[in-house]
Amino acid sequence: MQSPCGANSGAENFKNRFIMWKGRFSQDTSSLVQQFGESISYDWRLFPHDIAGSIAHARAQSKAGLLTEKEFSEIENGLRKIEKEIEGGTFEFRTSLEDIHMNIEAELTKRIGAAGAKLHTARSRNDQVATDTRLYCRTEIDGLIGAILGLQKALLDRAEKYAATVIPGYTHLQRGQPVTAGHHFLAYVEMLERDKSRLTDCRKRLNISPLGSGALAGSTINLDRRAMAAELGFDGVTHNSMDAIADRDYMAELLFVISLCGVHLSRLSEDLILWCSAEFAFAALSDAHTTGSSLTCRRKKTLMSVN
Amino acid sequence: MQSPCGANSGAENFKNRFIMWKGRFSQDTSSLVQQFGESISYDWRLFPHDIAGSIAHARAQSKAGLLTEKEFSEIENGLRKIEKEIEGGTFEFRTSLEDIHMNIEAELTKRIGAAGAKLHTARSRNDQVATDTRLYCRTEIDGLIGAILGLQKALLDRAEKYAATVIPGYTHLQRGQPVTAGHHFLAYVEMLERDKSRLTDCRKRLNISPLGSGALAGSTINLDRRAMAAELGFDGVTHNSMDAIADRDYMAELLFVISLCGVHLSRLSEDLILWCSAEFAFAALSDAHTTGSSLTCRRKKTLMSVN
Amino acid sequence: MQSPCGANSGAENFKNRFIMWKGRFSQDTSSLVQQFGESISYDWRLFPHDIAGSIAHARAQSKAGLLTEKEFSEIENGLRKIEKEIEGGTFEFRTSLEDIHMNIEAELTKRIGAAGAKLHTARSRNDQVATDTRLYCRTEIDGLIGAILGLQKALLDRAEKYAATVIPGYTHLQRGQPVTAGHHFLAYVEMLERDKSRLTDCRKRLNISPLGSGALAGSTINLDRRAMAAELGFDGVTHNSMDAIADRDYMAELLFVISLCGVHLSRLSEDLILWCSAEFAFAALSDAHTTGSSLTCRRKKTLMSVN
Amino acid sequence: MQSPCGANSGAENFKNRFIMWKGRFSQDTSSLVQQFGESISYDWRLFPHDIAGSIAHARAQSKAGLLTEKEFSEIENGLRKIEKEIEGGTFEFRTSLEDIHMNIEAELTKRIGAAGAKLHTARSRNDQVATDTRLYCRTEIDGLIGAILGLQKALLDRAEKYAATVIPGYTHLQRGQPVTAGHHFLAYVEMLERDKSRLTDCRKRLNISPLGSGALAGSTINLDRRAMAAELGFDGVTHNSMDAIADRDYMAELLFVISLCGVHLSRLSEDLILWCSAEFAFAALSDAHTTGSSLTCRRKKTLMSVN
Repeated sequence: MQSPCGANSGAENFKNRFIMWKGRFSQDTSSLVQQFGESISYDWRLFPHDIAGSIAHARAQSKAGLLTEKEFSEIENGLRKIEKEIEGGTFEFRTSLEDIHMNIEAELTKRIGAAGAKLHTARSRNDQVATDTRLYCRTEIDGLIGAILGLQKALLDRAEKYAATVIPGYTHLQRGQPVTAGHHFLAYVEMLERDKSRLTDCRKRLNISPLGSGALAGSTINLDRRAMAAELGFDGVTHNSMDAIADRDYMAELLFVISLCGVHLSRLSEDLILWCSAEFAFAALSDAHTTGSSLTCRRKKTLMSVN
Repeated sequence: MQSPCGANSGAENFKNRFIMWKGRFSQDTSSLVQQFGESISYDWRLFPHDIAGSIAHARAQSKAGLLTEKEFSEIENGLRKIEKEIEGGTFEFRTSLEDIHMNIEAELTKRIGAAGAKLHTARSRNDQVATDTRLYCRTEIDGLIGAILGLQKALLDRAEKYAATVIPGYTHLQRGQPVTAGHHFLAYVEMLERDKSRLTDCRKRLNISPLGSGALAGSTINLDRRAMAAELGFDGVTHNSMDAIADRDYMAELLFVISLCGVHLSRLSEDLILWCSAEFAFAALSDAHTTGSSLTCRRKKTLMSVN
Repeated sequence: MQSPCGANSGAENFKNRFIMWKGRFSQDTSSLVQQFGESISYDWRLFPHDIAGSIAHARAQSKAGLLTEKEFSEIENGLRKIEKEIEGGTFEFRTSLEDIHMNIEAELTKRIGAAGAKLHTARSRNDQVATDTRLYCRTEIDGLIGAILGLQKALLDRAEKYAATVIPGYTHLQRGQPVTAGHHFLAYVEMLERDKSRLTDCRKRLNISPLGSGALAGSTINLDRRAMAAELGFDGVTHNSMDAIADRDYMAELLFVISLCGVHLSRLSEDLILWCSAEFAFAALSDAHTTGSSLTCRRKKTLMSVN
Repeated sequence: MQSPCGANSGAENFKNRFIMWKGRFSQDTSSLVQQFGESISYDWRLFPHDIAGSIAHARAQSKAGLLTEKEFSEIENGLRKIEKEIEGGTFEFRTSLEDIHMNIEAELTKRIGAAGAKLHTARSRNDQVATDTRLYCRTEIDGLIGAILGLQKALLDRAEKYAATVIPGYTHLQRGQPVTAGHHFLAYVEMLERDKSRLTDCRKRLNISPLGSGALAGSTINLDRRAMAAELGFDGVTHNSMDAIADRDYMAELLFVISLCGVHLSRLSEDLILWCSAEFAFAALSDAHTTGSSLTCRRKKTLMSVN
């Protein structure tokens, strides 16, 4: 599709996903068990969320008197510096440190000493995993909603342009009743509207802070769970620590919602493929959007230009 | 689980799903093509929704002057009588009439003549399929929400009874921190709460009337879509006929939500299986709820009775 | 497709799957637990295999001196009579007896007394489930191979008829290189040949007798496992009782193989749908094979008649 | 598990899969369409197979008189050098060249000129994709069979060691009949034997050369398909070009077989998790194989050491 201005955010969003990872990984010393158990090779993506979560946790520790103001400041500055280095591709991840949580915490402690080690007080790695993955999914959902909105705007643009273009409506690919191309494009706007609605419902269910659930049974040290949740943009806090730590419903739900959206995009693609065939010849894609094979002979005149 | 009064509706609901179908099917004359194409052997379940939809449609036809009051009355009474016969198991379904929609319409027309045939005006079978399946899913959702609520009440009952019973909390089935059995039961109440929330969101998205979408491009005869929707308990009407006729998102979403609920029930069952083992011996099921094999030796003393 | 004589067995096979079940089920007295635990409503299909397995088992018991010749004869005759009644739709299944194994055994014992009860010696229900489901899958595989062979013959018939008919070959639905319709049909013959090969491999792996595995640890009474296997058409006997009882690999494998065959049939159907469209107009289906909607306008002249 | 000598190949095989990719990717100039269409970021893995396939093709071209001996030699040496560079991590992949096939061919042509460009004669990219992915799957299958064999040997080692160790056999996790731990371990040897058998059958079906199928309809230039197949270790050549180019059955089949093997490994893992629990306490894992959490208290005395 052409990029009507409204679609830019979607396209940008999409393009950003393709920026390749520049981090360095060291794993020479890791054993078979370490290799099997490590997750840093894929959970490095959680780094901004892990750092945000750690800062919120440290702030709550500080308010509870577990950290001095100076210690909190060292932690926050140390984490921000690590974040910059990861973004810049200069941070070295170690497979022997297993995951993103340990990689960041170990490096922080190496750099600022005792204060870094205090971060672990009243928090378990399970807390971090549960918090980080919720924040990660939330960010992805926001990106997807933006991308879908961009596609809807592009479809509306086409629907307006071809509002009066009459094409066959098919049942079982047999011509049934005439429709307008605009009506056809708007059907997809409806489908995508449901996808956005499902993403929003999924976001609502996952946007609750598990921080404070501990390994599974909470912690004897009481931190301000609501303050941590608010700092991280959560709408509330979870009620049951055993459920909060083990819950992965939001991942399953998000994967379902994305898959169903994929079905809609696949249907749209199939329509375009049919329309661009020599036999249908309803539409053509611009050369800029086709890589084509040497075998492909392009159509000269079609009803619509769909991109 | 014991049946605290609150759980009854769920149990009833469940039991009703097991009532076997007593309808009679005639298919002697059907050819291979008919056998391949028929859906009456499973879509007979849609009958109450098909009849409700047809009455709403006929009422709208009547208001639009397409039916006389007498004709509408004949249609409504004819359909109600057919409904009773299907419920009573005396209605004879014909495979040669393909589906529930044709079986009912053909029988109605045979019984009341011309008026019956008029039902098809300004409506297509696609309309009926889309309407009936939405109503069917809505009814199932309402039943499931009731059943889940019953299970939650039973879990709350156990949580209260064993609020002070300390058991191990496990990570990777290694004893981690002590928890109360009540806390453990309440984790499931949370999971089921999310399941209900997902069912409710799914219901919201599907409860929109497609009636009036025709085969795919609407109808030249304008019936009062909002009145029909209101009569059938829909919250609104669909916007795009091509989308409304082809949309099966709600089925995929409902299947996903049920599957995820099944994961929760499977996890609960696994806990009960572990707890009822000789090695854990935390709980026992009453004889009334175990069919058992001759090999099974039952535990004498356990921490909990979970049913 | 036309029915070239070779395809008849496939069509017959297919038609037979549609014969509806005429058995009578009684379940008035069953409780919720019984309803949850019963499998007779779907495992009644195993009846010929359960009866064949019981006769083989009884013969082995007889050879081992566990049954007199008279007792064996009573058992065999009793089981054959029950089989006839089930086939004739006059046998009454009881939900309270849970499954096909218990329904048959209880009825047999009711009819012939003590001898019937002896059938259970040196055999567990797990033995029966494992044996019956393997025999059931084997029978289905044989039916499927026959049906696929029929379709291959029909495709060969079309390939021969249209061996010189030139049509476009497509990549991404863009015309690529010309091919003959015969070449196109033969591509499907290849796919189906792989499906048959996969069915044959699956059959090879499942066609091993688990009889004698007991509940999970075999039996202290040694029956002639190889003789029972030979009587039931198995190629050998399983090696490990715990594996034999729990193994359901063959079901998963068969479902995969059927699904992949379904993908091929779906691709073939999609080709026919495209070819029968007004835009492609390469082929037409005879009226005998289309149910159609009132909207469908049939093509007059096409390159091929594909059925 | 301990590494009895027989298991080493499996462990090595497994370890090798974790060696991280050191190749360099350049993509600065690529547009959104290029980013969407590129596959080099994952199909670089095909490089040894693409190179082997190209050498076999060039040799056939040479025999057919399409290449001089000198040209063939330049192509072979050029490809071998590129292979070494990719293995050494010094080859630069370009996203703008889309996939592994174009990356290698473009670089070869840049280095040796005209001869490189001739490689494309009588071959299409579809040929390469179909050939490379078959060779890739074949190599993976051989690795998996080796790894499974290693695990079977380790299981046999445990089965021998604990041949007389009596443990409960369970049905529904209720103690049923006593079995030996050796018998239990051997059940897994059986499951894995079936997995190997399925891998072997899958290998048999995929090990047929599609080279010479062209884009979909073969080539007007006849190369010696059987010689190319033999050089690449294929057992034969495909019969139908349209099927050969589009066939992805072997991928679906391999994924199914691996998934089912995964089910067996998951069941084995579940057994070990149960056995290592404080409640069962049948077995313990050595510290070398557990990463554990700080919460885990290890068992002192158990029946078995399972690794």
